[in-house]
Amino acid sequence: MTLLNETHDPLLRCWLPSAHAQGADFPIQNLPFAVFRRKGRTEPWRGGVAIGDQIIDLAALARAGVFSGQAAVAVQAGAGDKLNALMALGHGVWNALRLALSRALREGAPEQAALQACLVPQAEAEYDVPARIGDYTDFYTSLHHATNIGRLFRPDNPLMPNYKWVPIGYHGRASSIGVSGQAFPRPKGQTLPPGAHTPSVVPSKRLDIELELGIFVGEGNAQGDAVPITEAEQHVFGICLLNDWSARDIQAWEYQPLGPFLSKNFATTISPWIVTLEALAPYRVAFTRPEGDPEPLPYLDSPANRAGGAFDIQLQVGLRTPRMAAAGQGDASICRTSYRHAYWTVAQMLTHHTVNGCNLQPGDLLGSGTLSGPTLDQAGALIELTTGGKNPLQLPGGEQRVFLEDGDSVVLRGWCEKPGAARIGFGECWGTVLPAR
Amino acid sequence: MTLLNETHDPLLRCWLPSAHAQGADFPIQNLPFAVFRRKGRTEPWRGGVAIGDQIIDLAALARAGVFSGQAAVAVQAGAGDKLNALMALGHGVWNALRLALSRALREGAPEQAALQACLVPQAEAEYDVPARIGDYTDFYTSLHHATNIGRLFRPDNPLMPNYKWVPIGYHGRASSIGVSGQAFPRPKGQTLPPGAHTPSVVPSKRLDIELELGIFVGEGNAQGDAVPITEAEQHVFGICLLNDWSARDIQAWEYQPLGPFLSKNFATTISPWIVTLEALAPYRVAFTRPEGDPEPLPYLDSPANRAGGAFDIQLQVGLRTPRMAAAGQGDASICRTSYRHAYWTVAQMLTHHTVNGCNLQPGDLLGSGTLSGPTLDQAGALIELTTGGKNPLQLPGGEQRVFLEDGDSVVLRGWCEKPGAARIGFGECWGTVLPAR
Repeated sequence: MTLLNETHDPLLRCWLPSAHAQGADFPIQNLPFAVFRRKGRTEPWRGGVAIGDQIIDLAALARAGVFSGQAAVAVQAGAGDKLNALMALGHGVWNALRLALSRALREGAPEQAALQACLVPQAEAEYDVPARIGDYTDFYTSLHHATNIGRLFRPDNPLMPNYKWVPIGYHGRASSIGVSGQAFPRPKGQTLPPGAHTPSVVPSKRLDIELELGIFVGEGNAQGDAVPITEAEQHVFGICLLNDWSARDIQAWEYQPLGPFLSKNFATTISPWIVTLEALAPYRVAFTRPEGDPEPLPYLDSPANRAGGAFDIQLQVGLRTPRMAAAGQGDASICRTSYRHAYWTVAQMLTHHTVNGCNLQPGDLLGSGTLSGPTLDQAGALIELTTGGKNPLQLPGGEQRVFLEDGDSVVLRGWCEKPGAARIGFGECWGTVLPAR
Repeated sequence: MTLLNETHDPLLRCWLPSAHAQGADFPIQNLPFAVFRRKGRTEPWRGGVAIGDQIIDLAALARAGVFSGQAAVAVQAGAGDKLNALMALGHGVWNALRLALSRALREGAPEQAALQACLVPQAEAEYDVPARIGDYTDFYTSLHHATNIGRLFRPDNPLMPNYKWVPIGYHGRASSIGVSGQAFPRPKGQTLPPGAHTPSVVPSKRLDIELELGIFVGEGNAQGDAVPITEAEQHVFGICLLNDWSARDIQAWEYQPLGPFLSKNFATTISPWIVTLEALAPYRVAFTRPEGDPEPLPYLDSPANRAGGAFDIQLQVGLRTPRMAAAGQGDASICRTSYRHAYWTVAQMLTHHTVNGCNLQPGDLLGSGTLSGPTLDQAGALIELTTGGKNPLQLPGGEQRVFLEDGDSVVLRGWCEKPGAARIGFGECWGTVLPAR
């Protein structure tokens, strides 16, 4: 568990004014990572670090040779077209880079001119999936989501008896993960409409979102070696936003007995920026269980996990219909919640994943599962927000939505904010539904 | 669907005598691919093609410049440390290489001396996983297995209503796939023993095998584009043996509602050799359904799939206990079956996987699911062979087995054989259970 250090000081000032703009996601205390290039150019993808409205180009920084020691090793590893090499270096090296960047970005830093020469405006950039994701695992860490969705899929048996013991997870599809801006055709698939005796293949009529966070693995573990919970967070590079698009009608027909498959694997969208655990340190909160619930088994329990294994990350989902877009309107908020409501922590997910010796690798991605909070307006999926499609959402301008329609765009946002700490933002994660092919 | 051509002629003779040994897996009509290097040397992994007891070193062949045109392109792509580049070239290029190799290996071929200089004895080789497996998907294509296992996990509801309509599949773990010879510690995990109210973390007491075939994807498809069944096999590079090790006690406790996870992802073992669909062409058989079962939906049906979408691949599982190994004995056969009993074909799996627009990539692996045949001795898992652990297997020397014990090795074998065609073998796929850590 990271303790606060000089990089978290809320009074730090960057020589770049946009880093201090009201509500800025990327102040000097954040320093998240992405893979980017300038739009419309044939230049290579490379790693970058966000500061204000700019990106520090790690390839340029490597060529400039501004840093030395571990920070220089980290910059070199982040200069390639995927961040796996940087992720593999481990938390000591990431933190060395964070400290070096923090110092070089402060007002009066002698490195200012050298770093300014490495800046690319975010407005000119496009992004790629930041790592080669070897394996993607999706968890199910919201008790509220599990209960809400269980009630709809299995009215007589909403919450499985294993839920409060096992951080339930399953493997997802890595190939179809895209970065913010991803647009995909509405998936087709087998569904069994109510009352029908024979399934048919149709475009999904119940296309949904799932508000999640994505956790990127840093250093891996050898096959056969479990990662104890006291070391789990050292294997985490950082966190991004993740939309686990879901076709509920396909899911209902296919998911037994081996779990969701085609209802999920057509597309998953993540935000370009990965916020490090180190940056999130001021927003740790205690991990608690509702009274009367069982304590986690010993391998999923530690003093640090209890004291600060959870993170208070504010989350919001916005929906923009084609009519709203045509009218030049922004998105309408349909959900507000926080990651603090999760039933299992990042450390518990990672440790559980390896208890059997399963090997994690740098760049692997863990999804948190839909992060629905305790009340209905905190639900992170339309199937919950509309109670299984029965109560349409009312949107500005008189529009309604039950599930997603063609042309709809969804945006996820995440940020941490509290008095006495700098705001730490995740940026945005956009995705758009195209008509079925 | 591949038609027979000159490479399938059973009368072809290779200038290498071991290619014609009685029961040889790798005659001139087979020509499977692997990634190998000489044992105990620090030399690079590279692609190879089996012939008799030798390997044609594709890196050496590329340097020798023996072939031209598409065959030369294929050799060059196969010279690297993974076969993904070769897989991406497509079936036209693979078949050009097959034809060129077939001709150069025939008695009297002018290329004999050049090819002989590229041979490495299999006895001196070790193997690696042949592709960078971006995503691994496991199917469930044996009706007999689904019924047997369903009866044990859900006595009142053995076969789900979707089974005869949906080629059920789910995502598996790519990182823990190893090649024949893989040894792994017995997995630990949460289990809920009979009668217990609280789960505990223990080494699995019900460690099992699953006899499967692995299907390597060749050319991929773009995200959003479904692959019609008439084109599905063009996207298949070839087939290997696959052992989907399974911890049944962990599985029973964790698998609802999102499917198996830690019960499977600690290890999966594949054979080094990938046999191409082209080599298997003489062993195509009609795809049929039991009388009264529904016809596949139109997207899973084609004349070619009906006429010859299935393959008659003979399969066998052997078990060798530490006592048998110490006594210098070979393995004892515990299962004999054929892939012809599968309820869904390779083409149906691949087409179903993409019906929603999911993108497959070169090197992706599809598991067939446990290939249990219609009778008990044809079951591909111990949980079936022992009726849920109630009827131990009797082994030579008076030993018994219910589930796997520490030190047990399991071998899968596969081959095709019939009058009027050359034998096409898959080699062996070995794996060993080590004590829990």
